[in-house]
Amino acid sequence: MTKLTLISDNRCFEGHQRYYSHESSATNTSMTFSIYLPDRAIAGQSCPAILYLSGLTCSPDNVTHKAHYQEMCSEFGVIFIAPDTSPKGDDVADDERFFVGQGASYYVDAKLKPWTEHYQMRSYIIDELYDLIRDQFPTNSIGVMGHSMGGHGALLLGFKYPSKFVSVSAIAPVCVASDSEWGQAAFEAYFGEDKNSWQEHDATYAIQKAGKQYPLLLIDQGEADEHLAAGNLRPEQLHKVCRQIEQPLTLRYHAGFDHSYYFIQSVMADHIHHHLKAADMAGSR
Amino acid sequence: MTKLTLISDNRCFEGHQRYYSHESSATNTSMTFSIYLPDRAIAGQSCPAILYLSGLTCSPDNVTHKAHYQEMCSEFGVIFIAPDTSPKGDDVADDERFFVGQGASYYVDAKLKPWTEHYQMRSYIIDELYDLIRDQFPTNSIGVMGHSMGGHGALLLGFKYPSKFVSVSAIAPVCVASDSEWGQAAFEAYFGEDKNSWQEHDATYAIQKAGKQYPLLLIDQGEADEHLAAGNLRPEQLHKVCRQIEQPLTLRYHAGFDHSYYFIQSVMADHIHHHLKAADMAGSR
Repeated sequence: MTKLTLISDNRCFEGHQRYYSHESSATNTSMTFSIYLPDRAIAGQSCPAILYLSGLTCSPDNVTHKAHYQEMCSEFGVIFIAPDTSPKGDDVADDERFFVGQGASYYVDAKLKPWTEHYQMRSYIIDELYDLIRDQFPTNSIGVMGHSMGGHGALLLGFKYPSKFVSVSAIAPVCVASDSEWGQAAFEAYFGEDKNSWQEHDATYAIQKAGKQYPLLLIDQGEADEHLAAGNLRPEQLHKVCRQIEQPLTLRYHAGFDHSYYFIQSVMADHIHHHLKAADMAGSR
Repeated sequence: MTKLTLISDNRCFEGHQRYYSHESSATNTSMTFSIYLPDRAIAGQSCPAILYLSGLTCSPDNVTHKAHYQEMCSEFGVIFIAPDTSPKGDDVADDERFFVGQGASYYVDAKLKPWTEHYQMRSYIIDELYDLIRDQFPTNSIGVMGHSMGGHGALLLGFKYPSKFVSVSAIAPVCVASDSEWGQAAFEAYFGEDKNSWQEHDATYAIQKAGKQYPLLLIDQGEADEHLAAGNLRPEQLHKVCRQIEQPLTLRYHAGFDHSYYFIQSVMADHIHHHLKAADMAGSR
């Protein structure tokens, strides 16, 4: 069993906000994640969990400090897990651009050097961290959500591995990474120039291929989000595909909101409710 | 009228989280504060306000990111203002110790060089910022609260200037700065070695001198707070004085909670309610 090292433990509402690190065989680095454990989980009672994938440049700190999920996870007994956005360290390959390299894994397994050695984040999330959570914390179901690049990750992994998750949601996701400035740069680095090889790592293509998988998909998007205007997010493409495959989708455009954690905190309660409802429907609570 | 420069403006719940800077005549520096404005305030409707004084080492960012006040201030129509903890800048006097100098003003007017030139935070908060808020934002009452060194500030200024505030509360406050390691170092720097001159800048002495001023004072304290054990907070002294002067006090010790923003966020709703109730009783809503 993976050995976890407790980094910090703070009482927060009726539960504990913790950070753990562990050696990862997938990324071949030490990895850190934050986890909120309501008291009932600490007492051993099985709880629904949300796996939150963060966006470009983030560590687990951003969502843990700024997304304001703790009160609701305390009240409803939800475990909330935030892994890092890539392997990190002086020995880990990187790029000067903030949308490639450290902080920008896109939650995929890289196929080209120098990225292959550590950038195996699909394997890390889906195999290693997923099993670690199931083995070492009392979870009865896991939903996956994410923001921006992490929204891409949640959609991609949620639809590629639907047996692993009861629910998927995203806030301002990069819906078509293979057709965005950010994603194209990262995919060229991790997979090479053949754009056909990119599609299996693209959230919207993965959803199109997978077909309907969940009772409902929830996406929130700010109208004043500069990255929406710049074409890096493309929710309209995801919308079109969900209609094609008849995947029920609640897509909400919010006037005035931007790409920041001020937007994330403003819609977080609805996302927690979305995942809780799916856990209830799955009979896991 | 003081000219405000808008630094950032993010939609957050039904309101806006903004940062402003302005030239301060009190501190002779540029000063920054954050302010949450619910939509009704932006529409010009008069609202109750809370002035939040942060603790050692903090900027307005900490509370704005981590204290999770925005949702409730949106719902109840509260303006929330977080000034900085001291004047800051390369030209501003400082000290290697984190509890003296930049980030550690104690919200007092320093009387000794080199601190006198910029460390006039009592004047800044009580005269300049207070008037600026009253003049430029639609406030109908102001309550003052704070954490740690900022809790000292809220208690000190709240009881020295009771005509300015409708309510006072504090989270893990430095209750007796003149008898704490942190406060003694700062007061010696700002006021000199004569300890008799320190008392007028000490929250508990100020409360004793002022007598009962508010219908109710609210203090929250974590039991697992390392600074409580180290003797820097001393709520038992404040408790004793409030009994002497018959100042009603709700003092709550919370098992398991430490000094962090995880504790602040866990009790923030109760503090906002405390200030709202006082605003209601004052007839200002």
